[in-house]
Amino acid sequence: MSGTLPLLTRRGDTLGYDRERGVVRILDRRIYPRETRFIECDDVQTVAQAIEDMIVQGGPPLAYVAGYGLALAARQHASWPSEAQRSALIEATARLRATRPTADDLHHIMREALQRGDEAIMRGESAEEAILRYVSSEVERGDRVAERCGKRAAELLTDGDSILTVCFAGAALNWMLHEAFVVQGKQISIICTETRPYLQGARLAAAQAVEIGVPTTVITDNMPGFCFRKGMITVYITAADRIALDGAAANKVGTYQCAVLARHHKVPFYVLGYDGPDPATPTGDAIPIEERNGDEVLFCAGVRTAAEGARGYYPAFDVTPPELISAIVTDRGIYRPELIARYLSEGEAPLDVLPLSQL
Amino acid sequence: MSGTLPLLTRRGDTLGYDRERGVVRILDRRIYPRETRFIECDDVQTVAQAIEDMIVQGGPPLAYVAGYGLALAARQHASWPSEAQRSALIEATARLRATRPTADDLHHIMREALQRGDEAIMRGESAEEAILRYVSSEVERGDRVAERCGKRAAELLTDGDSILTVCFAGAALNWMLHEAFVVQGKQISIICTETRPYLQGARLAAAQAVEIGVPTTVITDNMPGFCFRKGMITVYITAADRIALDGAAANKVGTYQCAVLARHHKVPFYVLGYDGPDPATPTGDAIPIEERNGDEVLFCAGVRTAAEGARGYYPAFDVTPPELISAIVTDRGIYRPELIARYLSEGEAPLDVLPLSQL
Repeated sequence: MSGTLPLLTRRGDTLGYDRERGVVRILDRRIYPRETRFIECDDVQTVAQAIEDMIVQGGPPLAYVAGYGLALAARQHASWPSEAQRSALIEATARLRATRPTADDLHHIMREALQRGDEAIMRGESAEEAILRYVSSEVERGDRVAERCGKRAAELLTDGDSILTVCFAGAALNWMLHEAFVVQGKQISIICTETRPYLQGARLAAAQAVEIGVPTTVITDNMPGFCFRKGMITVYITAADRIALDGAAANKVGTYQCAVLARHHKVPFYVLGYDGPDPATPTGDAIPIEERNGDEVLFCAGVRTAAEGARGYYPAFDVTPPELISAIVTDRGIYRPELIARYLSEGEAPLDVLPLSQL
Repeated sequence: MSGTLPLLTRRGDTLGYDRERGVVRILDRRIYPRETRFIECDDVQTVAQAIEDMIVQGGPPLAYVAGYGLALAARQHASWPSEAQRSALIEATARLRATRPTADDLHHIMREALQRGDEAIMRGESAEEAILRYVSSEVERGDRVAERCGKRAAELLTDGDSILTVCFAGAALNWMLHEAFVVQGKQISIICTETRPYLQGARLAAAQAVEIGVPTTVITDNMPGFCFRKGMITVYITAADRIALDGAAANKVGTYQCAVLARHHKVPFYVLGYDGPDPATPTGDAIPIEERNGDEVLFCAGVRTAAEGARGYYPAFDVTPPELISAIVTDRGIYRPELIARYLSEGEAPLDVLPLSQL
């Protein structure tokens, strides 16, 4: 049977911490799926560089890698006096947090991991062990969140749906497609925008959908408008790197323009919101947008593509305002964007704030 | 002084017919500006293939190349009986017209060139000469049209304008930038969307703008929405491969979605309409959209970029409805899209149908 869960579904399969050797292992997402190759990092600087170089991508996976990077720092300074250990952890945390500003997972996990390490040092215990325990539990929790979020999103799909997606929406996308297509037998298909410059749509999202068995089409990033106008898209679904309390969602650049197009063509836009909004971000305007090196857009697949003398510009994310989002799907339920803050107060109980018929 | 007119301004510099040797010379636009290399074609099939393979791109240039291709056919059959010559020309015309369906220039020029060849054969004269005379006069006329259209468009620009453009809008874009920036000294800048899969924006448009001296930024095709939202774009300008009598404009895929974005962000959209609408195309819906081989979107710069198992989809053009177009700029004047049919009846007199203040 077609329909096994592909590699990028469980994060533990794509990243990990080798305690024997003291290395962080990371699937190189820049070359996957053409090649399935892991790289190994043995200090904080190498881990931070791997995150900056897009070897690992996506809010939760890069946050886990950074967390493991802090465990590496703790290991390397384990014999130091406790105050020096703490300083080293603070410094390592700052370096790892500085890699990517937009997604909130990184910052949550680093804050918490630092605290666990700090407490362990105070108790005279191994900071490495404490950080590892925490990060590994977060990886497991994240996998459960992705599974629940994806399965809920599958409820929104019906026979004949043609999904547009941007970038790679992560493990929840895999769960959604698997649940709808394999488990529920819904006849769905997916159109992946290639997502320049790193082509996460053409490579990561498309590879996962193909492996699940869903009919998969790749288009370049200038074609969604044509497909909307031709009626080829019935639902638009992406992830979010950060959701603000007002329901705005930051995601890979290009998400916003497709949201404008979806609204113009009366197609619903669902955000896979995983574990909900960032309590520390009141509005979309407060989300920092990472501006990467503009030279990255002047090349494709390692080949110079743009004319000499032109400047490249590379905002890596954009923010879609709540009024362009139909609903945010989380592990706890499906929310209207303007009600997403309720995610934080309603506890673990499933809560379908938005009846499906009203979407 | 910066500000000479770059290579793609005068079409005769990028394509031609060598009467001594009987070959059509074409600048290879797939590799320009990285390399300035001409290829030579010595029969109709090679010319048709060069057009299909995007060695020459853009409505007028590819039409001129096809016209020269017909001269080649006439030359090669010059010693045949007149009926056989005529049949050969009809067959060559069909082959050359079948290369690209969307732009109207190709079809106009081939119809007319065939007639000139036919008439020459009837008079016992050289069909090659007659076709050459006609096509060369069209190249000259086209250059005059582009210059007038571009200079008129320059009137629409003011200090501080930041232009968004898609694909390469041809010689009129060069004239517009040269007139506004070099001649009139207006402080303008341009943002070129790279225009996957052939990257005409990153390569052709950006190279021309850089050579004229205009500050030039390249972005990937998923970034215009972000730039609009950030207020980085004050005017959106493209060419059109075909304009219908109702004011709809077909152009490189991606043009339509930026037109939706321009309207959403209250930015004017001007179409460089060269010599106006196609009298034989009543509405935008009547414009045939070329669907190219989907595999072309699965590669970039010769490297496979998409996951195996995914299908590629490649509509090469899209149609923007008149209600999303602010004005169409032609060699005869600037028209509201809904009045563009007047271009055909008003003769050569300059006619600014739309006062600039109302745009």
